[in-house]
Amino acid sequence: MTLDLAKIEQTLLAAAEAAATRTLPLFRTPLAIDNKLAEGFDPVTEADKSAETAIRAVIAETFPDHAIIGEEWGTTGNSQYSWIIDPVDGTRAFISGAPVWGTLIGFAHNGVAIAGLMSQPFIGETFLAVPGRATYRRAGETQPISTSGQTELAPARVFTTTPSLFRTPELMAKWKAVESATRLQRFGMDCYGYALLAAGHADLVIEPFLNTYDIAALVPIIREAGGAIACWDGTEPTGGGDVVAAATPELLQKALELINAV
Amino acid sequence: MTLDLAKIEQTLLAAAEAAATRTLPLFRTPLAIDNKLAEGFDPVTEADKSAETAIRAVIAETFPDHAIIGEEWGTTGNSQYSWIIDPVDGTRAFISGAPVWGTLIGFAHNGVAIAGLMSQPFIGETFLAVPGRATYRRAGETQPISTSGQTELAPARVFTTTPSLFRTPELMAKWKAVESATRLQRFGMDCYGYALLAAGHADLVIEPFLNTYDIAALVPIIREAGGAIACWDGTEPTGGGDVVAAATPELLQKALELINAV
Repeated sequence: MTLDLAKIEQTLLAAAEAAATRTLPLFRTPLAIDNKLAEGFDPVTEADKSAETAIRAVIAETFPDHAIIGEEWGTTGNSQYSWIIDPVDGTRAFISGAPVWGTLIGFAHNGVAIAGLMSQPFIGETFLAVPGRATYRRAGETQPISTSGQTELAPARVFTTTPSLFRTPELMAKWKAVESATRLQRFGMDCYGYALLAAGHADLVIEPFLNTYDIAALVPIIREAGGAIACWDGTEPTGGGDVVAAATPELLQKALELINAV
Repeated sequence: MTLDLAKIEQTLLAAAEAAATRTLPLFRTPLAIDNKLAEGFDPVTEADKSAETAIRAVIAETFPDHAIIGEEWGTTGNSQYSWIIDPVDGTRAFISGAPVWGTLIGFAHNGVAIAGLMSQPFIGETFLAVPGRATYRRAGETQPISTSGQTELAPARVFTTTPSLFRTPELMAKWKAVESATRLQRFGMDCYGYALLAAGHADLVIEPFLNTYDIAALVPIIREAGGAIACWDGTEPTGGGDVVAAATPELLQKALELINAV
């Protein structure tokens, strides 16, 4: 069976568009905020669930035989082809009005993501990859993206969502080693950090404890843009785990050596 | 002399528009990134300088007698009325492609900011205040903004740019106290955090070591939206210092007590 890449790309875009109709109406609304703070009914989960339902409907219509793995609704189907969904990655961003959350949809073959999309619908940005091509879309324009090409640690710009992810002394020592070895560190980006890396604006993203739906969609975006991504033990990251993404294979290697030396 | 508030508002908006023509062409360009990393010529400072020049020209044309205090070009003029400018607040955001930097322009009378604007031109958002009114503008629409009304620490969402701002053990102890007392903490926002607080999406922003141009523009936006802002010793924050902004005067009081008890 040959994959129809155009159909996969269209499905990614259509699914993201469907998700946006569920997420945007809740973003920056008093509803989203009040309810999150009042326990019980949780509007972020509501946005998540509703968006994942919309995404699943689009995928199922086009590829009824494929498996779907979603943060909210679990795994359905059984196939060498799977779609891996985080309808709202960056919950803290979402509930505090910061436009750096994203909708993540990955497409994997035998457990390795080969196409994927990150959509930030409030800003109107989409980062997308299919085999052979990574692109950035905004306001009707599409342009190719590529990583910075950085191969050295010293000048690198590093993102991680928050230093509190490194929650054991051993993990914190690893983060401190990265911090000392690099030029600029930024927090608070979630999936947006990986997208900026793919587009050449950051050089390294390091995060422990990722789930498959946190990272699968971003794996092909980084790789097709010229970057490299792996778990800290060097294995394939599509399934989640402790992950490093880098602008180049050389930089990935140096980051892995640094992390594993601590 | 009576202040012409409409003229002040028009000047704020025109100055921000002029600044955007200088900042946007450098944002997310290889030029901005490469040069920042190569020492010597510094394109962020170039964006800053060029944008501040453009802002100063707009102000000087309308209010030639007013003082201007800018991050890049220092203080010019001597008047009870001053304009306080940070052309690009959030340098780390700017050079890493994150759209959470902003152009800040404040207008102060006798050292207290009474009007101000925060503009994020990539997203196309403007947060603006003149006496009696705080507004949010995007895509040609203007709507009033107000803070969340939160009066308690426990459910509060707190922003600070990075925990490394709290660079002494005493400061870090204050931040830890805030972290323990509140529900959600976010990093990486710079001026954008204050704007989100004014619009009701965050409840508290706490930062030491601010300069007047980091905060003056944001003071009236927070106050006119129903929030409260002060230095940690309770004094007026327009001039800079260690600052807390809160959704309500009650929450500000509780945050000040917490910080000063450590």
